Amino acid sequence: MEGYITIHSPATVANLVCGFDILGLCLEQPYDVMYMKLTDEPGVVIRSIGEQELPADPAANTAGAPLLELIEEKKLNNGFEVIIDKKIRPGSGIGSSSASAAGAIAGANHLLSNILLKEDLVRYAMAGEKVAAGVKHADNVAPAIYGGISLIRSIFPLDIISIPCPDLYVTVIHPQIEVKTSDARQILKKQVLLKDAIKQWGNIAGLVTGFMQNNLELISRSLEDVIIEPVRSILIPGFNEIKTSSINAGALGGGISGSGPSIFMLSETKEIAGKVESTASEIYKNLNVECNTYLTKINRQGVKIF
Amino acid sequence: MEGYITIHSPATVANLVCGFDILGLCLEQPYDVMYMKLTDEPGVVIRSIGEQELPADPAANTAGAPLLELIEEKKLNNGFEVIIDKKIRPGSGIGSSSASAAGAIAGANHLLSNILLKEDLVRYAMAGEKVAAGVKHADNVAPAIYGGISLIRSIFPLDIISIPCPDLYVTVIHPQIEVKTSDARQILKKQVLLKDAIKQWGNIAGLVTGFMQNNLELISRSLEDVIIEPVRSILIPGFNEIKTSSINAGALGGGISGSGPSIFMLSETKEIAGKVESTASEIYKNLNVECNTYLTKINRQGVKIF
Repeated sequence: MEGYITIHSPATVANLVCGFDILGLCLEQPYDVMYMKLTDEPGVVIRSIGEQELPADPAANTAGAPLLELIEEKKLNNGFEVIIDKKIRPGSGIGSSSASAAGAIAGANHLLSNILLKEDLVRYAMAGEKVAAGVKHADNVAPAIYGGISLIRSIFPLDIISIPCPDLYVTVIHPQIEVKTSDARQILKKQVLLKDAIKQWGNIAGLVTGFMQNNLELISRSLEDVIIEPVRSILIPGFNEIKTSSINAGALGGGISGSGPSIFMLSETKEIAGKVESTASEIYKNLNVECNTYLTKINRQGVKIF
Repeated sequence: MEGYITIHSPATVANLVCGFDILGLCLEQPYDVMYMKLTDEPGVVIRSIGEQELPADPAANTAGAPLLELIEEKKLNNGFEVIIDKKIRPGSGIGSSSASAAGAIAGANHLLSNILLKEDLVRYAMAGEKVAAGVKHADNVAPAIYGGISLIRSIFPLDIISIPCPDLYVTVIHPQIEVKTSDARQILKKQVLLKDAIKQWGNIAGLVTGFMQNNLELISRSLEDVIIEPVRSILIPGFNEIKTSSINAGALGGGISGSGPSIFMLSETKEIAGKVESTASEIYKNLNVECNTYLTKINRQGVKIF
C-alpha cells in the first residue's frame, strides 16, 4: 500500500507449559498484516480491513492504546494511521490482541526512526494488553517484539530475558470453542501445594537449561505443568487425548497456549509436527468440534517491517 | 596414610535461594578428609579421627549406609574401611552428612576402578542422606559429586543437570546456634500463594539463565526467595542485617544455606567476599553470637581423590 509501511505482527504462545505467566514463544504463523503511516496531527486513526471487525475508537483498541500513550508521553507533534488486517482470531489463545499492540508500537517506532528500546516497546504494548485483558502482562507482547523465547522475570520493574533455543517446529491446534480469559483465570486456585510448586520450578529450570543447551530430551522431560494444566485443561475438550497422541507421534511436548483454547506442541522435525497436526484434526473431527491448525516454527525475529 | 586413598569431600550449599529443593552448589572449603581402602570381606568398618565423634555402626553412619547398599546390590566380595576426619561441623547447614556419604561412595568407586556412573554415585549417596535426615534428597550430594552447580529436576526418577556458571566467590557464615532440619521443615507452610510461586519460578529461570550466560546482574536480580526465606530466616538471628550489609558491600546476593543456620553470599571478587565476611563477623560479635566463616569459591570438581 503506497505511503504506508507493512507490518507482519506474529501470534505468540504465552504460559509456556511450566512457565505460566513468565515464558512466551513467538510463532512464524499466523500473523496480522498491518499498514501504518505518520499523520500531521497528534492522534490515532484505526481502520480494519478483512474479516474481523475491530473497535474504531483508538482508546478501546489494542493497537490504538499504546500509540496514544506514546504520543502523550513523548509529546509527539505527529499521529498515526493504522490499517489492520487481522488474521489471528481473537479469543484463540495465541496472542491476537498482543499482535495488534506489538505491531502498532513497533511500526510507530520504525516511523519515528527507532527512538525506542525493545523494552520500551514492550512497555507501551502492555497498554494494549490492558485494554484487552484488564491487566498488564507481557508474556505475549515480549516474544512478539523480541522474537524467539522470552522470559519475563518480572513485570514491575520490567525484566525481559531472551532465551536462546533450538529451531523447533510448532503445531498449533485451535478448536472453535470459546474459553474466556477471565474464566480461565477464575478457575485457578489462589494457593498451590508447596510440593507442586517445587516440581514446577524444577521443571522451569530444566526447560530453560534444555533450551539454552539444545538438549531436546531435557526439554521434553521438563515440558510438564503440574499446577495450571490439570485445572484448565478440563475447559478444552480432547486436550488429554491430543497431548497423548502428539507425544506418541514423537512431539517433545506442549500444552495449553495462553489461556486456551488453542493447544500447541513442539517437535524436532516438520514430519513429526505434521503427524501431530493430522492426528489432532482427526480427534476433533471425531468429537464434532471444528478446528483450524498451523504447522509453523519458532519465529526468531518477532515483528517484521517492510 | 599408607595403603589408603585420601578423599577430600566438600561442603555444599543446598536450597540455593529461589532454588529450594532443586539447586545446590559445591564449595572449595571446608571439606572432610577421608581415608579408604578395600578389605577382604564384605562389610564396612568406620573409624573417626579428629574432633567429631561419629556413629561406628555403619548402618547408622552416613558414610556407611551407601557402602552397605553398594556391597549388597553389586554382590561385592570385598568390603571397605573408612577413616573419617570430619571437618565440616554437623548441623551447620552446609552438607556435613552429604560430604561423608558422597566421599565414601566416590572413594569406593575409585577403589573399584570406576564401575559406577556419577548418577549412580548420587543414588547411593542418597542412602546416607536418608540415615541423616530421614528422607532422600540430592541437592547436597549431587553438587558434592558433580561439582559446580547442580539442578535436581526430579528425584524419582533421578534427573541431575550440571549448570555452567561463572567463577564466583562464596562467603559462608556459620553462627554457632542450632537449627534442626526437622524444625526448619515444620515451619514451612504446605501451601503457598500462586502469585508467590510464579515470582519464584520467574526468579529460578532468571538465575539459571544468569549462571549460564555469565550475566552477574541477572544473577543478582534473580537471587530472591519470596517463599522459604521469609519464614525460615526468623530462626537465624542477624539474618536480615547480614544480607543487607553484604549487598551493600557489593555481594550479588545469597541466603540461607540448606536449612540453616549458615548463611552464604556470592560475590564477584575476593575483595568483596572478604568485606562480606568481616562485616558479618562484626554483626555476630555485636549480637554476642559466636560464628565461624569461610571465604571460598565454587568448587567445579566436587569430591577429590588422591
